Amino acid sequence: MDLNSDLAEGFGRWELGDDEALLSIVTSANVACGFHAGDSSVIRRAVERSAERGVAVGAQVSYRDLAGFGRRFIDVPPAELTDDVIYQIGALAGFARVAGTGVSYVKPHGALYNAIVQHAEQAAAVVEAVRAYDPSLAVLGLPGSQWLEQADRAGLAIFREAFADRAYTPQGTLVSRRDPGAVLHDPDEIAERCLRLAAGEPIRAVDGSEIRVEADSICVHGDSPGAVAIAAAVRDRLTARGVRLEPFAPGAR
Amino acid sequence: MDLNSDLAEGFGRWELGDDEALLSIVTSANVACGFHAGDSSVIRRAVERSAERGVAVGAQVSYRDLAGFGRRFIDVPPAELTDDVIYQIGALAGFARVAGTGVSYVKPHGALYNAIVQHAEQAAAVVEAVRAYDPSLAVLGLPGSQWLEQADRAGLAIFREAFADRAYTPQGTLVSRRDPGAVLHDPDEIAERCLRLAAGEPIRAVDGSEIRVEADSICVHGDSPGAVAIAAAVRDRLTARGVRLEPFAPGAR
Amino acid sequence: MDLNSDLAEGFGRWELGDDEALLSIVTSANVACGFHAGDSSVIRRAVERSAERGVAVGAQVSYRDLAGFGRRFIDVPPAELTDDVIYQIGALAGFARVAGTGVSYVKPHGALYNAIVQHAEQAAAVVEAVRAYDPSLAVLGLPGSQWLEQADRAGLAIFREAFADRAYTPQGTLVSRRDPGAVLHDPDEIAERCLRLAAGEPIRAVDGSEIRVEADSICVHGDSPGAVAIAAAVRDRLTARGVRLEPFAPGAR
Amino acid sequence: MDLNSDLAEGFGRWELGDDEALLSIVTSANVACGFHAGDSSVIRRAVERSAERGVAVGAQVSYRDLAGFGRRFIDVPPAELTDDVIYQIGALAGFARVAGTGVSYVKPHGALYNAIVQHAEQAAAVVEAVRAYDPSLAVLGLPGSQWLEQADRAGLAIFREAFADRAYTPQGTLVSRRDPGAVLHDPDEIAERCLRLAAGEPIRAVDGSEIRVEADSICVHGDSPGAVAIAAAVRDRLTARGVRLEPFAPGAR
Repeated sequence: MDLNSDLAEGFGRWELGDDEALLSIVTSANVACGFHAGDSSVIRRAVERSAERGVAVGAQVSYRDLAGFGRRFIDVPPAELTDDVIYQIGALAGFARVAGTGVSYVKPHGALYNAIVQHAEQAAAVVEAVRAYDPSLAVLGLPGSQWLEQADRAGLAIFREAFADRAYTPQGTLVSRRDPGAVLHDPDEIAERCLRLAAGEPIRAVDGSEIRVEADSICVHGDSPGAVAIAAAVRDRLTARGVRLEPFAPGAR
Repeated sequence: MDLNSDLAEGFGRWELGDDEALLSIVTSANVACGFHAGDSSVIRRAVERSAERGVAVGAQVSYRDLAGFGRRFIDVPPAELTDDVIYQIGALAGFARVAGTGVSYVKPHGALYNAIVQHAEQAAAVVEAVRAYDPSLAVLGLPGSQWLEQADRAGLAIFREAFADRAYTPQGTLVSRRDPGAVLHDPDEIAERCLRLAAGEPIRAVDGSEIRVEADSICVHGDSPGAVAIAAAVRDRLTARGVRLEPFAPGAR
Repeated sequence: MDLNSDLAEGFGRWELGDDEALLSIVTSANVACGFHAGDSSVIRRAVERSAERGVAVGAQVSYRDLAGFGRRFIDVPPAELTDDVIYQIGALAGFARVAGTGVSYVKPHGALYNAIVQHAEQAAAVVEAVRAYDPSLAVLGLPGSQWLEQADRAGLAIFREAFADRAYTPQGTLVSRRDPGAVLHDPDEIAERCLRLAAGEPIRAVDGSEIRVEADSICVHGDSPGAVAIAAAVRDRLTARGVRLEPFAPGAR
Repeated sequence: MDLNSDLAEGFGRWELGDDEALLSIVTSANVACGFHAGDSSVIRRAVERSAERGVAVGAQVSYRDLAGFGRRFIDVPPAELTDDVIYQIGALAGFARVAGTGVSYVKPHGALYNAIVQHAEQAAAVVEAVRAYDPSLAVLGLPGSQWLEQADRAGLAIFREAFADRAYTPQGTLVSRRDPGAVLHDPDEIAERCLRLAAGEPIRAVDGSEIRVEADSICVHGDSPGAVAIAAAVRDRLTARGVRLEPFAPGAR
């Protein structure tokens, strides 16, 4: 099983998240590429520390939107979106090269991540960027999304992620953050659920029913001290029970 | 001899320069990397057209300053400047990869170009970026500049450029744009001078004396219809007299 | 009748449109406020020249999107949108104050203009910004839009605009730019139509039928030499036939 | 005596400082205007809360440099700097208007603050912006700076500030942050020194000698929990000893 989290989310004077702590927990780092967060120096440091620890480096590509932290849908024409994604992967790859590693995968961020669950044109645009840049890059996303389905059809290696602290509907989709109970807070409950995900066992949906969520990676958060503690608890529980943690897309290039 | 010019200087809705016309003239393209100009799509197009025509692609790295078009000195701490330059080279290299070519050289833009003639710390920062990213990249700049001298000491391949339309002092430096006669306008005079530069013959300084300017490349401009016409005249004169035009740093990687 | 056009659409090194020419034609200037275009100096100049010529100054507020020139819908939460609009009006009002005039009206730009034809929440957000900043400001927009309807309900003075060079459907809405015949190019036809608009007479829709379009202002463009020539032709035709041109919202404050 | 501090230093997702805590301490708020920090919503909130508490609102104008938080000198041509400052004051004034208050003073931020201690042309540019926008605005800065001297000659009301936690040289200038002992950390020592500043008594320089620092306002910081505690200690000490705290420039607009 793989654990992934967002890194390099600061910008200039502004810090966000605890990259050092997360790098002792996760096996894959979704590194911001400068469009929603991540100045050049914070990106470089995150990539270098990832390389030192054997954490796989992923490009967390985004809409160009520092003011909105990439969390606002932007109706970017697909051709421009493809180019913006290539730009971001390339910039990150520069730091990976300097650090003696490579970019292993692509995971879109925020509103782009959400949009390409269903927005076929934007999903195709991001897939095209990955294919054009390097078809051996892996892609990480939500099972059933346009993003993963189109990437699959384009011949890219796709990987599915589950969320450690998000409630699921009986249909296996995420409960909207606007609805009650959308986010889990109990470290023990979250860790136990991750254990079941890793074992391929069913988990409990928000209505109490059992559902199956297939996952190659579990997403943990690090943007608050509490979040880091939960992520650490997940890692500890998994390793204590003999789950081997390793990147889903290890190869540097 | 090589002819170089700035490309991809538009941004979003704003166009600047005539990339198509320039690509039929020059052998090396200084492609903006998004910090002073160049949105993702204009960069991609410039790189792809360069690749199609066999024009070498150079990274025209800059301070982060869209509002000032990179023409204002910014006192960026050297470590940050190094990282900003790596970011820009990487982003451009992504498009070069997509276009089946590579970045061949680095030429700083605007105020950064001017600063690192003498600013030793910033010169060292840019040199360090090139060295860390890829020590086989060539660098292009002003003879006698800190930039070329430090790059040389760092083991990088350095190339010197002369300016087709700028007046020189008797000491071989550029006449300041603030002084009268700093810019030449007569296409015939400019073309003739470029011919002498290509032949390694002395040219006339602003005071009428003869000076020697050693150049591996001649910089022409393309940001006005008149400038493009002059650049074309330079190319025509050189080729008519049997000067072979080819990139100083041809190798894609 | 009033003629309005977009001004101050350059940014830094990049020029766009011919503000001087337009200011000899229009009676109301939609001045960019820095979010989609307009650096501080180009805004100041446009406002000062408008004041000198007695042209009314309007705030052309936009999404924060220089790279997209404000032409891409952004799903900005309404409360943030309200604040972004207040910011822009305030910034423009600073230059109006310096020029001895005031902001007379607000006309949203690009994708925001299009969005708030139907997007009730964003329309309400912009209305709230105007109301909070200064309820005596006029607003300019498309007849029947959420923007004008909500502004009207909020007690703001609303003004309707027609487009000189855009084809209309039989229902009185604009023909989409993606459809053939969406934009008129014949100066004579355009000028004649503006004359009918000014006289309150029906104009011809794209299918040949006659429709009535009520307008307090006619929008002309200036982003190409051809566009300026058309705008001039419109003005000449109107004044030649005795139509008095004057700002719909003259009062400086 | 007046206490001033920087507010609205977040941007989008990124938070910085504790505006609520500071507003219970200071009498003047230097509000970021969006060029180095401060999105529209964080500015609005800071201005509204300042108005509610009777805290004077100042425009903390800056170079346009989000990535550098305004802490890097930029060689902006003076005419552009004037316009950038007018833009920022205007934007802030928009929120002040909405909050039922006004901008009372201007205090440059970061590298601009430092530059115009000696940089006569940039100092003149900022003075010109204030004069053009509203010559009744007060200006706050370092005694002996070009900024205050030129503002004084231009007829603006000038106010001098001292720094609660910065060491002074025997000449009365600030000890550089690069030198040891530049920043004081002991709350008791800092509070005692502020008391002496408020009483017009000499304070101790870094070499132990006594110097006189004339101040109309004392600058306290709020960008860390420790800083806020120190600021609170300063306020408590001053009020406990009967020093009346009030804005140096109380008047709205």
